[in-house]
Amino acid sequence: MARRFVVIGRRAVASGEFSLDDLPSTSGRMDVLLRCVRAAFLVSHGLRRDTIVYLVLLGGPRAPRTLRIDGSAVRFVRPDERALANMVQKALAIATSGEGFVEVKPGIAVAEGGLEVVLGDVGAGTAYVLREHGRDVRETALDAIAPVVFVGDDLDLDDASAAALARHGAREISLGPISVHADDAITLVQNELDRVASR
Amino acid sequence: MARRFVVIGRRAVASGEFSLDDLPSTSGRMDVLLRCVRAAFLVSHGLRRDTIVYLVLLGGPRAPRTLRIDGSAVRFVRPDERALANMVQKALAIATSGEGFVEVKPGIAVAEGGLEVVLGDVGAGTAYVLREHGRDVRETALDAIAPVVFVGDDLDLDDASAAALARHGAREISLGPISVHADDAITLVQNELDRVASR
Repeated sequence: MARRFVVIGRRAVASGEFSLDDLPSTSGRMDVLLRCVRAAFLVSHGLRRDTIVYLVLLGGPRAPRTLRIDGSAVRFVRPDERALANMVQKALAIATSGEGFVEVKPGIAVAEGGLEVVLGDVGAGTAYVLREHGRDVRETALDAIAPVVFVGDDLDLDDASAAALARHGAREISLGPISVHADDAITLVQNELDRVASR
Repeated sequence: MARRFVVIGRRAVASGEFSLDDLPSTSGRMDVLLRCVRAAFLVSHGLRRDTIVYLVLLGGPRAPRTLRIDGSAVRFVRPDERALANMVQKALAIATSGEGFVEVKPGIAVAEGGLEVVLGDVGAGTAYVLREHGRDVRETALDAIAPVVFVGDDLDLDDASAAALARHGAREISLGPISVHADDAITLVQNELDRVASR
């Protein structure tokens, strides 16, 4: 089983049409999502092969689309934003049809559709959603075997996504007294999962 | 009192002469240090005004130099790497003399010299150094009032820095079963400090 992180980019442009020289202004804050990819996968001595990241892209005319990166198969996940942006841009440039996830490179797949496609793809596990008012992760019996963690981007979750996750049974968790960026949230959850898994 | 983070960039170019389009290859991995700046300062609802970051730049012909960013005075710390690189590059382009920290912009100062200059500047507090073999931070009575946290970049600390920090009395701490990147380490320490401070 894998650790799955699902980042919902409310404005992140699904077409991949953005400038590498000005990501925040041209990509619908794809930079936030790219930092989440780094935080989810990269550790000092390599790449977390047990992790899968979904980027749900809800911005622009091609939306919704979802990018899936599977740590067990992906190659060359670099830490810097520009390289990650380049990787995502190339993947999104490939035409996809409406039939689930299509692998466009080893470990990288793209699907038409948003959260509903992810919910159909993640498989079994315990769903969590990061919310400021949620229960402290350290007071939660965290499932380190098959967690599915949903997180918003720099905006809070949209109402439709929040409602869909509630129907899905996602448990609301928080990460401490100060609300942090999405990538930091993923860093904190990965560390917590590492600690639970090592007990 | 402030939370101080000191990041030691073993190859990070002290001259500021690097390409924004290829940071990892041209800057001596300044990208690692820039991500540390973001992790130290930025939270969902703004900037941590109680935090000071030192970037010790040991790479290139102008080394050693140190950049200091003071959260109580700095403006416009943006989250994306390219904007952070631009900010640091502009600060380093300003000529500095050999007389301690010189403020080059509000909240941003540059000094000639490396770790010894930082040790003379940080003031009172409890020093910690992040090491894989250190004591788990959760089993440490962490000083949340005046911590000074030293961290290496993507390489481990050089012997001279490690020896200087040992003489300085820095306590070795670790952050969990899996060794993480420097920016993730700072995220984890900030969260731990938030938790200790809120008790």
